This record gives sequence, C-alpha cells and structure tokens, in this order.
Amino acid sequence: MSTRQPYQLVSREWKTEDTVFEINGVQIGRDRLMIAGPCAVENQEQIYTITEFLSKLGIRFLRGGAYKPRTSPYSFQGLKTEGLILLREAADKYGMAVVSEIMSEDKIPELLEYADILQVGTRNMQNYTLLRALGKAGKPILLKRGMSSTIEEWLLAAEYIVSSGNERVILCERGIRTFENATRNTLDIAAIPLVKSLSHLPVILDPSQGTGIRDLVPAGSKAAIAAGADGLIIEVHNQPKEALSDGDQSLYLDQFADMLPVLEEIAKLDNRRFDFTQEKIRI
Amino acid sequence: MSTRQPYQLVSREWKTEDTVFEINGVQIGRDRLMIAGPCAVENQEQIYTITEFLSKLGIRFLRGGAYKPRTSPYSFQGLKTEGLILLREAADKYGMAVVSEIMSEDKIPELLEYADILQVGTRNMQNYTLLRALGKAGKPILLKRGMSSTIEEWLLAAEYIVSSGNERVILCERGIRTFENATRNTLDIAAIPLVKSLSHLPVILDPSQGTGIRDLVPAGSKAAIAAGADGLIIEVHNQPKEALSDGDQSLYLDQFADMLPVLEEIAKLDNRRFDFTQEKIRI
Amino acid sequence: MSTRQPYQLVSREWKTEDTVFEINGVQIGRDRLMIAGPCAVENQEQIYTITEFLSKLGIRFLRGGAYKPRTSPYSFQGLKTEGLILLREAADKYGMAVVSEIMSEDKIPELLEYADILQVGTRNMQNYTLLRALGKAGKPILLKRGMSSTIEEWLLAAEYIVSSGNERVILCERGIRTFENATRNTLDIAAIPLVKSLSHLPVILDPSQGTGIRDLVPAGSKAAIAAGADGLIIEVHNQPKEALSDGDQSLYLDQFADMLPVLEEIAKLDNRRFDFTQEKIRI
Amino acid sequence: MSTRQPYQLVSREWKTEDTVFEINGVQIGRDRLMIAGPCAVENQEQIYTITEFLSKLGIRFLRGGAYKPRTSPYSFQGLKTEGLILLREAADKYGMAVVSEIMSEDKIPELLEYADILQVGTRNMQNYTLLRALGKAGKPILLKRGMSSTIEEWLLAAEYIVSSGNERVILCERGIRTFENATRNTLDIAAIPLVKSLSHLPVILDPSQGTGIRDLVPAGSKAAIAAGADGLIIEVHNQPKEALSDGDQSLYLDQFADMLPVLEEIAKLDNRRFDFTQEKIRI
Repeated sequence: MSTRQPYQLVSREWKTEDTVFEINGVQIGRDRLMIAGPCAVENQEQIYTITEFLSKLGIRFLRGGAYKPRTSPYSFQGLKTEGLILLREAADKYGMAVVSEIMSEDKIPELLEYADILQVGTRNMQNYTLLRALGKAGKPILLKRGMSSTIEEWLLAAEYIVSSGNERVILCERGIRTFENATRNTLDIAAIPLVKSLSHLPVILDPSQGTGIRDLVPAGSKAAIAAGADGLIIEVHNQPKEALSDGDQSLYLDQFADMLPVLEEIAKLDNRRFDFTQEKIRI
Repeated sequence: MSTRQPYQLVSREWKTEDTVFEINGVQIGRDRLMIAGPCAVENQEQIYTITEFLSKLGIRFLRGGAYKPRTSPYSFQGLKTEGLILLREAADKYGMAVVSEIMSEDKIPELLEYADILQVGTRNMQNYTLLRALGKAGKPILLKRGMSSTIEEWLLAAEYIVSSGNERVILCERGIRTFENATRNTLDIAAIPLVKSLSHLPVILDPSQGTGIRDLVPAGSKAAIAAGADGLIIEVHNQPKEALSDGDQSLYLDQFADMLPVLEEIAKLDNRRFDFTQEKIRI
Repeated sequence: MSTRQPYQLVSREWKTEDTVFEINGVQIGRDRLMIAGPCAVENQEQIYTITEFLSKLGIRFLRGGAYKPRTSPYSFQGLKTEGLILLREAADKYGMAVVSEIMSEDKIPELLEYADILQVGTRNMQNYTLLRALGKAGKPILLKRGMSSTIEEWLLAAEYIVSSGNERVILCERGIRTFENATRNTLDIAAIPLVKSLSHLPVILDPSQGTGIRDLVPAGSKAAIAAGADGLIIEVHNQPKEALSDGDQSLYLDQFADMLPVLEEIAKLDNRRFDFTQEKIRI
Repeated sequence: MSTRQPYQLVSREWKTEDTVFEINGVQIGRDRLMIAGPCAVENQEQIYTITEFLSKLGIRFLRGGAYKPRTSPYSFQGLKTEGLILLREAADKYGMAVVSEIMSEDKIPELLEYADILQVGTRNMQNYTLLRALGKAGKPILLKRGMSSTIEEWLLAAEYIVSSGNERVILCERGIRTFENATRNTLDIAAIPLVKSLSHLPVILDPSQGTGIRDLVPAGSKAAIAAGADGLIIEVHNQPKEALSDGDQSLYLDQFADMLPVLEEIAKLDNRRFDFTQEKIRI
C-alpha cells in the first residue's frame, strides 16, 4: 500500500487530478450535476409528467426508484421491472439519462439494461458482495454514504468498487444519523470539502434524504453548491402529498424550478456551470 | 395489520408466549445459550484447539467466520468454503452446532450445507433481499442489530424473515454506534429487556463486538444475563495476539472458562440454566 | 504530569487502591451504595411517605431534587429551600443521609447546610466554575456524566473537583444521548468496568434517567451490579402517575422493594454487600 | 401557553417579523454579521495585530476569549480580567464591538463592563441560573447551541433568557457531536433554515468550532450564508501554529481576508449585505 490512508485507488494522494467522465454529454466531476425525479416510479402518468417538466428545465438526469429498500416488509416496494421500463421510456423520450437503485447482485443485468447510473443506497453501502460485483459492471455507480458510516468507511466502500475495476464512482452525501430528530438525517456539509480533499472522485449531495423536509431542500442545495459539491440529487413529485413514498421530502415541481437560477449563480462564483444551463444553451 | 406496532408477526402482541426451538439438544429461548469461537476460522490447528477446549466446558455452539465482511477490501476476508469445511469437521468431532455468517444470497446453499444457524451481520441487517431469502432457508437465523439501527428497524428486519416463512430467528444486540470511542460500540443493555417485552423472539448479546475490548467482555456478559438475555455469543481465540481479525476483543481461552461459573450463578437467580451446564450434567 | 492520561489525580495510575470514604456508616467504594427517593420533593406527605418506606427496607441514602434543572422555563423548577428543609427533616427522622442537586455556585452554602452529598447534574458536568467551587466545599460530590460526554471528559470534570481539594467524588453513569429514542438515554453499561479500570473513584449507575422507562429499571439495576457498579441511584415515588416530574421513570414503592433481594444476590457473587443489608442485620 | 411549541416568546408563531437590533451601527438580524478574532486573548501584540488587520477589512465585531472553559483543569484558562482589558482597548482603538464568553453568574458585572455581546458557550447552554441572570443583564447575548442539544432544547434555552427580560439573543449553531470524528463536530447546516422558520431570532454559524479544521472553514462559511444564516463567528490568528488554544481551527489572517469577497457575493444573491461591506462604503 503506498498511501497513508487505508484506501488507495480512490485517494487524492494516489491520483491528484479530479476524476471526470462523460454521461449524456455532461462531464461529471467538472460540470455540476443535477439529478432529479421522484423517489419511486409509481405509474406512467406520474413519470411522464415529471420527466417532461424536468426536460424543459434542461435537466439531463432522471432519478426514480423501481426497487425500493423499505424498512417495513409491508410498505410499497417499488414497481420493479415495470418501473424500470417506464423510467427508461420516459427518459428516452426526453433525452435524459437514468439513475436507479440496485439492491442486490442478481438484479445487476436488469439494471444495466435500463439505467445509465446504478445507485447503491445507504443500507447497502457495506454490502461488499454487491460492491465487488458493481466494480465489474461497466457502468457508473452512485454510492450513497451509509447513514452511520464514517468518511473513511465510505471511501473504503468506494475502494471496493474501484479496486474491482470501475473508477466511475460518484460519491453521494445524504445525511447521517444523529441524536437530532427535527430533521430526518443530519446533513454533513463539511464532508463535501473534506472528501474532495481526500479523494479525486466527484461528490454530490442528496438534500431530500438529508433533511426529510421539503422546505429545507432549497437551503441544503444552495449550501452544498457553495461548499463545493459536484452536484445534487433531488426528489421531486407532481403530487407530493399523494406520493407512495417520501412525499414529505419531495419538492413540488415549481419549487424545484424556482431554485435553479440561484444554484446557477452560486456555481458561477466558483467558475463552474450546471449541466442544465448547458442544455438550455444548446437548444 | 392487527398490532399497534409497525411489525406484526414478531410482536408480543401477536404471540404472547416466548418462541422456543431446539437446536443440538438446547431449547433456545428457554435455556440460556452460549455460542463461542473465533472471529474467523484461520487454519485447522486453530479451530481444533479452540473447539476441543470449548467442548470440554460443555459449550454446544461453535461460532467462526468463513466469509468475513471487512471495511477494507485489503483486509483478510476469510477462508470461505475451506473455512466452512474446517468449522463443520471440528464441530462434528466434538458434537457441536455451527454458527457462521451469511453475506449474500448466492451463498445460502453453501451455508445451509455447513452451518446450523446462519448469522446475518450488522452491515446486512437491512439487506432485504437477503432477509427474504433467509425466510425461506429452513434453518434458524441469528440476526444482529444494525450498528445504527433503532429497535423498531431491527424488529422490522426480523419481520422480513418471519413474514417470509421462518420464525426461528434469534435477535442479537451487539452495540450501537455513538459519539463515545473509548469502546468500539456502546452496548445497549436496556435494549434486552425492552425487546423481550416487545417481541417473543429470543434475544442474545455479543459483548465482544459490543465493547471491542477483551477485558470488558466478562462484565458485559454478566450484565446481559442479569438483564435477562437469552444467551451470549463470544469471541475466543487460542492466541488472540496473533488473530487475523479482532484479536483485541477475543478472550483468552482460560479467561472464557473463568467467567462461566458466575454466569451460571446469575442465570440461576432467574431460575434458568445455561446450555453448557446441562451438557456437563449429561456426561 | 506523571500519568499517560490527560487526567492525573483521579487515575488508577496515580493511586492504585480504590477510594473509600464513609457517609452515614456506609463505606462508599467498598459497600454497594443504594440511593433512592423521588425525582423532586413535592410536599411533606410525599417525602415522608417515601422516606418511611425506604427506611424500613434499610435504605440509608435519600435522594430528592429541590432545585431542578428543567429544559423549559415553564416547567416545575422545584420547591427550592422549602424542599431542602422537608428533605432534611424526613431524612433526620429516619436516620438517612441526603443527596440533592446543586445547580449554581451561590447555592453551595445552602446545600451544605441541608445535604450530605451534593449532586452535580448532567447539564452542569462541564460547569467548571461550579466544579472548582465544589472542590473546596468539604462534602462528597456525586458527579453525573454529561449526557454527551466522553469518559475522558467525565474523568477530567472529576479532576477539576479533586485538584481543587476534594477527593470524595462519586461518579454516576446516567445514560448517554444517541440516535436511539426507544429509551430516554442509552445506558453505557461498559463504562462501569472501564471507568473502574481507569480511576480509583467509586462508580454508580442511575437506571431511572438512563432508561426513562419504569419497567426497565430493575433490569438496568441488575446489569449494573453484575457489571461491577459500586451502587445505584434510583427514582421512586408513592404515586408515580401524579409525580410533578419524571413520573414515567419512577418505580412504584413495591416495585423497588421487590428488586432488592436479587440485587443482594448479585452483589454477593462478587463478595460484596449492599449497604441496606447491613442496616437490616444491625437492627 | 399560546403556541404549539413548548417555547413561546422566541417562536415565529408569537412574533412573525424578524427580531432586529443595532450594535455598533449594524442591524443584527437584517445585515449579515461577521464576528472574528482569536479563540483566546493571549497578549497585547497578538490582539492588536489581529484587531488592526480585521478593522482594515471593515470587520466591526471582535471576538476573543478571556475566560475559557477548558476540558482539562491543566489547560490554559484564559487571561481573565487582563484579557478583557486588552480586548476592550484594542476594540476601542479600532472602533469595534467586543464579543466575549461569560462562564458564570458572578462575572456578569465584569463582562458587562468590557463586552458588547456576552457569549454563552456550548457547555453552558443549559446552565439555567446563568441564562436567567443574562435575561436581566441588559446587553445582547450570543447563545451557542449545546454540543448535543436538540433544536427544541436550544430554543428553550433562549426562552429562559427572553422570558427573563432580554429579547436581544443571537442563536449560534456550532456543530453537534456525532459518531463522525473526521471533523471536531458535525455542522448541522439544515438547522439554520429550520430555526429561522421556527424563531424570529437571528441565527449565525461558527464554522471554526463546527469543523475544527482550518481548511474547511471557508466552505462551511459559504454554505452557511447560502443556507440563509444571519452571520458568522470565525476564529482567526496571526500565528495559528503558536496559538494557546484551538490553533488547528483558526484561519490565517490572509485566508480570512481571501474568503470575504465570495461571502459578499453569496449574501447579495439573497439581497442582503454584510456589515463589513457597509463599513468600507462608509469610509
């Protein structure tokens, strides 16, 4: 081992320059990334309504859960294959890339067929069998931080993927579990600059899971970009109050649109631009 | 749903009397259970030395990791199949049952061949794909609490297994992650009586993971039995300082033997007996 | 500084043998100590009823809050001087010593007049002005652990008192604040043997604050004594459901009486005896 | 009680409009506030060097500890009265207001003589005797959040001050204690917009204590302003590596100056301006 940290390939010491890779015309790690969409794909109307709205704003990355890890076995577990098909069709219609969660090794082939970025959820951050398999999957991975994982454990989880052959890993801070229950999780905002100093991988933030409260999402998003995050992943819904999961933390579509200009402005202060601004320029 | 809690089949409300099931002549949930053995199976000499020692004390359940979930991809990951074979042979020679960890769904057939109780580790407590599969596995499951899981989440994880068809679940408290770093984890001793009031499933404690410090294991073990735990799972090693994993928290064999009599005495105060005392009586 | 830890005078390294001192005929640090009483003194009838009951069981230490630190300025703040007078009179009538909380330096003279042990609450563990003043107060101090203090910080707080001239400090574990909300705090049971190895001071446990749930107090008490605690401080009330504060965690008087025999038995396993057993022998 | 929360006078429900009050020509609660200075006043040269530098940048609020609460009784405890005199003289020379910590009730007269804002530290957030006394002190209070206090407890601590007669309270988020040790504390960035929605009091952030790492302070500062904080309190030092306390988290003077322009820009996005920009305009 040639680094001072327990992780190696993911470290800044091992590779000085930022890792940058292209998906759907966006230079992830250079451009600021905006991923948006519903917590879960629920039906055709929902996903098309949301996707159309997002595409008009220039959003290029559509998130949507088809396989949902739920605390209770009696909660809605996602539309599974049907959800992936709907997500793919909607994304294709509007020229967007798909981000969706992978919960177990045996579903990798299916996810590879329908998604462009495979998301590892917080509960699976230390599912090492899955991480190793994703190292061989050949598509970018969005690796959420475990809800009670240290930064070191998170980077070691990324090391599992990278050392298995896949350097296209996007780290995603999503709040950690603390004694404070006024918010669903505690957004660890300082983790963003810290991880960027320790690793060359892109780091984005999920303010929806991170706060669990819709009205805190804009502030959390602005804070993340001001702190140097490489992007955001945000839950939006056309009818949050009817959402089958996580409605309380999903933005109304207009609320989402309203916060984009200020995010652009904050990004510019750092001489960087959001992917959705490029899209608008291109059209 | 007919219970006031989000979980149902595992609740005391659903089923008043304790769940009791027999393995290797021990009535788990009635007799106090003692599981002991090394963190990881390392080689034939190690596992036979330990197993022989334990069997002389009347211990009937042998633990040993063959597939080891490790924070770093560069740490020792276990002997895998070879480890399971060694564990099974040693256990069979001395009339003991085998407890070993299952890390992923695809290894279930192998574990079913070699182990009597399949252990779900703390990192996999919310690996719902695995939990559902174990609900159909037909062998008892030892379900460790997630290191930052609430009691409700833990019981819901058990509900995944039970609702998939397997009621033989042993819950295992193993310490939670807190701000205190003087110990590896913080043993949540009050969780034992609380979970026993909420659920009919047996609850045991792992003081080795729970404290991370060898010299605190006897006190943690005594506290657990005094608090009403249905048993213990303890890491022991013939040469802790040379152990390939978790040596600092593994008891010396003599240290383990020395604490058994007082554990028996504490159990008696509650009119219960340990499984190892029966063994001695029988011989 | 001649110790390896940041604290010195309180360390085992500095002084090998246990600190033992006598109050009301009890050798604290040698005999197991039982302190019981209401969370707050409420009126004459309440405190006399409780004190009489406790004295018949041989209990020698009466707790009762007169100055109550409350999270809200609108909650009952204690009877203040009137409460101390009632407490002292009741204790004197039944031959008991008084334990009561000191919240600020200016009340030290008053507390010294009415109490035998001055309790520093969890919120004041790092009130260094108060700690220094208590180092000169000339009476024993019961120092509760801060709700989010590390063991090192707790021992350093004790060092403030001892280095100011008062070695008669009793450490009291009372649960720490964690993510788990099923209990009011998380009892850090492993802190007991760990602190006893690091320090020569007596260590007791408060299972009432530690769990916040009446029915968990007996299990927490038994666990503490089994883990080697030098005693317990327990909230009891003649009418818990009418208590002005912390009724949910106060034992019914009979519930308290019922758990004493098994605590005696556990203490005997360690060749130690509770102070209340001596009382009964004496009479 | 006429509010739905346990606090009343500090709530938004009780008073809809922001609390604004003037100190040293700055409208706190309307203008963004910048407080800077050393962790502790160490000597005349140090405090004059820093104060002169800050004044040239337009900074109007000088922080500096004279009474320092330290975890160990053997650590530097501050220059006490001498420190306050130095701080006052330096501030007066350069037209700045003084912010300094009050540790106990008996020092209130002295602090009132030398300081313009009295700071309550994290360890004293629940020192209710002190809070009540400060409610009658007649000068603004900067109330730090307890390191493990919930937002509700923090607002109730403010309620102690306000209900005792002093509405000029500035709330200060300074990071909470969590399992993560890569940073000294975990900055709870979402607490800023959340507290601003719950209360009419100004809310600022301390990124120095909040992260404990100098190089994370600029990112934390930008995040706070982007999230809507009413200001910042930041530790700076002319020679951080020789600082008597908290040198690792103190910014170099140039590092501090360098981050001001971007903070101004972020504030402008919200149509607000920093107090230091006004100063420069005025001159």
